Amino acid sequence: MAQVSIRDDEVDIVIAALHPDLTSFMEEWRPFFSRFHLIVVKDPDLKEDLKIPEGFSVDIYTKTDIDRVVGSSSKTIVFSGYACRYFGYLMSRKKYIVSFDDDCIPAKDNKGDLTNAVAQHIANLTTPATPYFFNTLYDPFRKGADFVRGYPFSLRSGVQCALSCGLWLNLADYDAPTQALKPELKNSRYVDAILTVPAGALLPVSGINIAFDRELVGPALLPTFRLAKEGKLRWETVEDVWSGMCVKVICDHLGHGVKSGLPYVWRNERGNAVESLKKEWEGVKLMEEVVPFFQSVKFSKAAVTAGDCVVELAAAVKERLGAVDPVFARAADGMVEWMKLWKVAA
Amino acid sequence: MAQVSIRDDEVDIVIAALHPDLTSFMEEWRPFFSRFHLIVVKDPDLKEDLKIPEGFSVDIYTKTDIDRVVGSSSKTIVFSGYACRYFGYLMSRKKYIVSFDDDCIPAKDNKGDLTNAVAQHIANLTTPATPYFFNTLYDPFRKGADFVRGYPFSLRSGVQCALSCGLWLNLADYDAPTQALKPELKNSRYVDAILTVPAGALLPVSGINIAFDRELVGPALLPTFRLAKEGKLRWETVEDVWSGMCVKVICDHLGHGVKSGLPYVWRNERGNAVESLKKEWEGVKLMEEVVPFFQSVKFSKAAVTAGDCVVELAAAVKERLGAVDPVFARAADGMVEWMKLWKVAA
Repeated sequence: MAQVSIRDDEVDIVIAALHPDLTSFMEEWRPFFSRFHLIVVKDPDLKEDLKIPEGFSVDIYTKTDIDRVVGSSSKTIVFSGYACRYFGYLMSRKKYIVSFDDDCIPAKDNKGDLTNAVAQHIANLTTPATPYFFNTLYDPFRKGADFVRGYPFSLRSGVQCALSCGLWLNLADYDAPTQALKPELKNSRYVDAILTVPAGALLPVSGINIAFDRELVGPALLPTFRLAKEGKLRWETVEDVWSGMCVKVICDHLGHGVKSGLPYVWRNERGNAVESLKKEWEGVKLMEEVVPFFQSVKFSKAAVTAGDCVVELAAAVKERLGAVDPVFARAADGMVEWMKLWKVAA
Repeated sequence: MAQVSIRDDEVDIVIAALHPDLTSFMEEWRPFFSRFHLIVVKDPDLKEDLKIPEGFSVDIYTKTDIDRVVGSSSKTIVFSGYACRYFGYLMSRKKYIVSFDDDCIPAKDNKGDLTNAVAQHIANLTTPATPYFFNTLYDPFRKGADFVRGYPFSLRSGVQCALSCGLWLNLADYDAPTQALKPELKNSRYVDAILTVPAGALLPVSGINIAFDRELVGPALLPTFRLAKEGKLRWETVEDVWSGMCVKVICDHLGHGVKSGLPYVWRNERGNAVESLKKEWEGVKLMEEVVPFFQSVKFSKAAVTAGDCVVELAAAVKERLGAVDPVFARAADGMVEWMKLWKVAA
């Protein structure tokens, strides 16, 4: 991993608590979390009291806090389920956010050593990204790597990395149809690589294991794409996929980079994919509209911050997708509302 | 690796012989080469007789054959050094070409098992590529993998893969300045992944370890970008980088895919990077002109084959780069001449 020097107080680790008892989760992560400040956002639908072990620096936000900041009347921004983490993104005042789902624990590498996903995300965010030319030996800023022959020198300084997308071992982030068709399909391949996703290319960002530079793209990580039958399992949501496409097109416009690859987390099994199929087809079908939209969206030259871009994106969503499905009109309204919240919070 | 069914006689393995004694090279590769037909092209600058062990099905081409087909008078197409392999591409009548430099041997994977680079290249070429959306778990057609949540179903059938770019362990394919600055820098990271390089993204293709679908893009693998001081070491050439950019933009236009990653080969050390620096700067400097050209080149709708595209590309090179450096005018003329040879050969 490349050497980086940031201060611990520049980082917030944001955890969405979908389960009341975070004891084993936090104990597994203790060696890597304990240096940093944590923000835990309790799913407002969760009735039981949270259990968090001692010895962490942590702020906890609950339904009361959400209602105070957002009001309880918002129809377009709903911070329930996985979306509650976005409230933590809003409340943070730090430069970097690292976020994991609460059913994930640290993963082991090919040698069997426990990996530090927090440090890897920070390394990804604090070393340059190279979106304008693909390096076949992956991240050129990693120890033991470099730019290969033919890589233009003028592009070797790279650009700032705004988003780091980590991966998953054991239960991979497949959709419900895939997991239902192949119930035995687990991810056991630890691919020892980080790469910059080239400019112009889209990817399905997963919120399970990510980090981002809040100063650069914070407002683009937004919770407004909510399926009518969204559930409490990852494959019953696409809010993170939508948000990821927002970030990617905004990064492409602003000249920032998005990395994918290390770190991995180990995901524990949850839920019944066949049961979830009823809900998931909605998300799957909507992707067929979402992807061409993001592949063709353009920003004006006046859009020079992520916030500017979110506002333009909301207008484009409303105009081009608003009539296709109510979820899009809600998402567009939510993006406008989100930017108001963001400006108040800032 | 995905299951593929192709006939052995659909493949030619093309080897450029820059060394006279291929005995140890061929013996190392015997388990993987012996099923297939080989084409060995002897570097016309090589004086000694070739030594090739028995037990292979092999056609050998020498200066005599090259002069017969091309004539000895061509100023724009010179099949010496690494470029002699392109004569093999021209002579082949097979659908698939696999090609390795003669200083490479089979690599071992992370478990210490010898890998079959020929089979991996064929698997890469015969399973679909996915250039229109990035799959974060890499090649979705590999055993144990699939498309992740959010990947649009309409893009999951993918497109035909036309080029498979393998990688290198031990001596990596750095340019002379990088290798001279970091003489100890070897590549020891075996990244267990294959990915499709997204449409619109360029990469520095290396000719050390590649395979391609000759029917789809054969004419685009061409030897016409020759540095004034081209040498007999990889870092003294960029002919493959140029050719790779031709293939990539042509694939993007025709709707084919390019994969990068596995298979690895083990590269043995050769040459003195500091000595080569005098020559290499020419290639390094030219990349600064080459990359913006390929990033912006467009084809007409009338260009429906790789050959059509090469002709249009030659005209664009001549028009936009011809005045910048004589190497570009020569490359453009060579591309036109190459297409004539290709049509005669076809």
